[in-house]
Amino acid sequence: MARKDRNSVSILVSGAEVLDGRVVDTNSNFIARELSDLGIKLHQVVTCGDDLGEMVAALEFLARDSRVILTSGGLGPTTDDLTREAVAEFLGVSLETNQVALNYLESWYASRNRTLDESNLKQALIPVGAKVIRNPSGTAPGFVAEHHDGTSLISLSGVPSELKGMFNESVKSLIQEFFPSTPKIEVRMIKIFGVPESLVGKIVQSSDLPADLQVSYRAVFPEVHLALKGEDPEVLNASIDKVTRKIGSEFIYTSKPTLSFEENIHALLSSRGLTVSTAESCTGGIVATMLTNPPGSSKYYLGGISSYSNQAKCRFLDVTEDLLLKHGAVSAEVAAQMADGARSHFGSDYAISVTGVAGPDGGTDAKPVGTFFVGLSGASITFTQRFMYSSSRELVRRYAAYVALDFLRRKILGIAPRELPLKP
Amino acid sequence: MARKDRNSVSILVSGAEVLDGRVVDTNSNFIARELSDLGIKLHQVVTCGDDLGEMVAALEFLARDSRVILTSGGLGPTTDDLTREAVAEFLGVSLETNQVALNYLESWYASRNRTLDESNLKQALIPVGAKVIRNPSGTAPGFVAEHHDGTSLISLSGVPSELKGMFNESVKSLIQEFFPSTPKIEVRMIKIFGVPESLVGKIVQSSDLPADLQVSYRAVFPEVHLALKGEDPEVLNASIDKVTRKIGSEFIYTSKPTLSFEENIHALLSSRGLTVSTAESCTGGIVATMLTNPPGSSKYYLGGISSYSNQAKCRFLDVTEDLLLKHGAVSAEVAAQMADGARSHFGSDYAISVTGVAGPDGGTDAKPVGTFFVGLSGASITFTQRFMYSSSRELVRRYAAYVALDFLRRKILGIAPRELPLKP
Repeated sequence: MARKDRNSVSILVSGAEVLDGRVVDTNSNFIARELSDLGIKLHQVVTCGDDLGEMVAALEFLARDSRVILTSGGLGPTTDDLTREAVAEFLGVSLETNQVALNYLESWYASRNRTLDESNLKQALIPVGAKVIRNPSGTAPGFVAEHHDGTSLISLSGVPSELKGMFNESVKSLIQEFFPSTPKIEVRMIKIFGVPESLVGKIVQSSDLPADLQVSYRAVFPEVHLALKGEDPEVLNASIDKVTRKIGSEFIYTSKPTLSFEENIHALLSSRGLTVSTAESCTGGIVATMLTNPPGSSKYYLGGISSYSNQAKCRFLDVTEDLLLKHGAVSAEVAAQMADGARSHFGSDYAISVTGVAGPDGGTDAKPVGTFFVGLSGASITFTQRFMYSSSRELVRRYAAYVALDFLRRKILGIAPRELPLKP
Repeated sequence: MARKDRNSVSILVSGAEVLDGRVVDTNSNFIARELSDLGIKLHQVVTCGDDLGEMVAALEFLARDSRVILTSGGLGPTTDDLTREAVAEFLGVSLETNQVALNYLESWYASRNRTLDESNLKQALIPVGAKVIRNPSGTAPGFVAEHHDGTSLISLSGVPSELKGMFNESVKSLIQEFFPSTPKIEVRMIKIFGVPESLVGKIVQSSDLPADLQVSYRAVFPEVHLALKGEDPEVLNASIDKVTRKIGSEFIYTSKPTLSFEENIHALLSSRGLTVSTAESCTGGIVATMLTNPPGSSKYYLGGISSYSNQAKCRFLDVTEDLLLKHGAVSAEVAAQMADGARSHFGSDYAISVTGVAGPDGGTDAKPVGTFFVGLSGASITFTQRFMYSSSRELVRRYAAYVALDFLRRKILGIAPRELPLKP
């Protein structure tokens, strides 16, 4: 067998439910991103059915080029769970009941007042010579074993939450031990809203970053997450600062990888004791939904109006019929009245509003599909701004909701909006 | 080489962006589901990087057991697009410029007023003896070729929308030609809300369905989609009717595979000229968002109140302080007043309300996290019902929004709710 590239990891995914399309394999992408952050290459992924011969052939295929093979799935108690048998056959060893695994299974069942039956005992079987990997959130323990040719095998549960738990608790450090010469990679991430991915790419390309830095982008509509990876913390810090300056720090809502857009708004409002209310037309209730996603949102969110009809705009938000007739429901003037109306009725520090044409119908030459106005009302000032985002109904709505929340973020942080205030 | 199972299709996915985690491969799942509907088995999927040797080795590995190999990706104009080279090497032929592909490329660029450059010409290269597959939505044409051992190769663009377009336009029928003895499979689907997947499974198992029917489930939280597949339309119809009766037709919102839960509500309201408004507490604005997802929702959705604070419940929905003090905001009484208040203020035919404890904090012994009340107000009657759904904040909120909309669906269809009305 050829040994072209032994500096890499491969994955064997087993499961008929993936091959017949019932289940989407998310484990491979999770592992791919984790390995990328560690600076370790993912070489190949093979997905195969619950067939012993096929699984052994796939392990042999992957072992030709990989230092480590991770398996996902096939560790359950039923007869179509064949990963432990396939790995044992590949290693040329038999299976034995492992005492650590057995104790663990017994205490798991005991703590839930259930008894271990024959089929569950199968989950304590691991290949002779292998070591158990604890499963912090399920019954199937994993294991790590060595092939005499130097390939390491790591078998994990295929349930995504269990695989993640096992990976974070033990597998990450195990893999790092297998690649001792891999330099320690650090990551700097910025999360961007308001700059398209293509423009972020051009800005990074024109930034003359050190050639050994790895750059990766992830578009999570409508956000762009940019990560720089490298060995030298100082070079990384200087590079991310440079990119941040060129993009404009006002477009970067966080540099914390785990903080979401909504959680950032939550933190801004909570830490300052501020309250907010909403008035939504074309977004229906997306802004309200986003504001109430994080737990504890009742501290700052007082409520909102989905003013989908003109009647609702007048009744609940004091929008005047005059204004609706003169400027139309989709206008800066109505966005301003909606925000002012919400703030006054809910008695909140701020109110944000959205009105627009999400499509696919309802566009005009003056206000084509994708046109929307966002308003922000505060104690001393009301701002509105017109936007145009040509896309599907779903994406226009989501984008508009983000813009409205970004208005609020900018206001709280004292970042200037990009248009003149409507009323001083 | 072994020829174990030549009645199947395998997939080769090429792309460094999948292996480093930047992109999630959705093409495999799309193909898996399409093949499953055709009654053809997906044997294996291999994902490998942009390396000629690796790709050829993977094709050889897959060809051992598969009648047809589909490749996804690697047909672009850049130097790391190597699929056509790998397929040619695997087939033992050279590449040649294909006139059909060239004409197609030229007209694509001409229609966009762009000129074909050297790198784009690469996209007209296909293996000698292969036939071009049109790409209805992109530049990279695909091709189909035969290996002398009887394996058929089909190479498709890796851009999901292009792959889907090519699959639907030509590849589906091509594959069916490759498996002439595969019986024509028909599908019957029902979309269920309100019955857990495990219970649906038990009901199906106890239904004595003909053994040659394929049963598959898909859980799209909180819905369960059940599909029966088989050759005989009459047997399928009888079987789906039987399962429908056992599950209870009131839990099945549609048997149309392409109709979503929201679109079904849309159709029910529009066809009857009915209007609705909403009053949401713990769901923030999810019900409003769902009602306004389908285009044309302004015909039936008059608006809603996100009454996240008690003050908002009193001010906009006429909930009395008395009632809030006596029963708490999370109560049947308040849910009823919220729904009545919304209906009266918006002047809609119906109004639906939700109030609950989404968690993770705020639960009590009497009303633990996951408790919620849904209300429905109509011209002559107001219903409420208490529910308990123990899960994460995100799932409790989503589940509660579905229950509220399902209340409305049942009311419109005259399906009895499962509790006594609060006021007659």
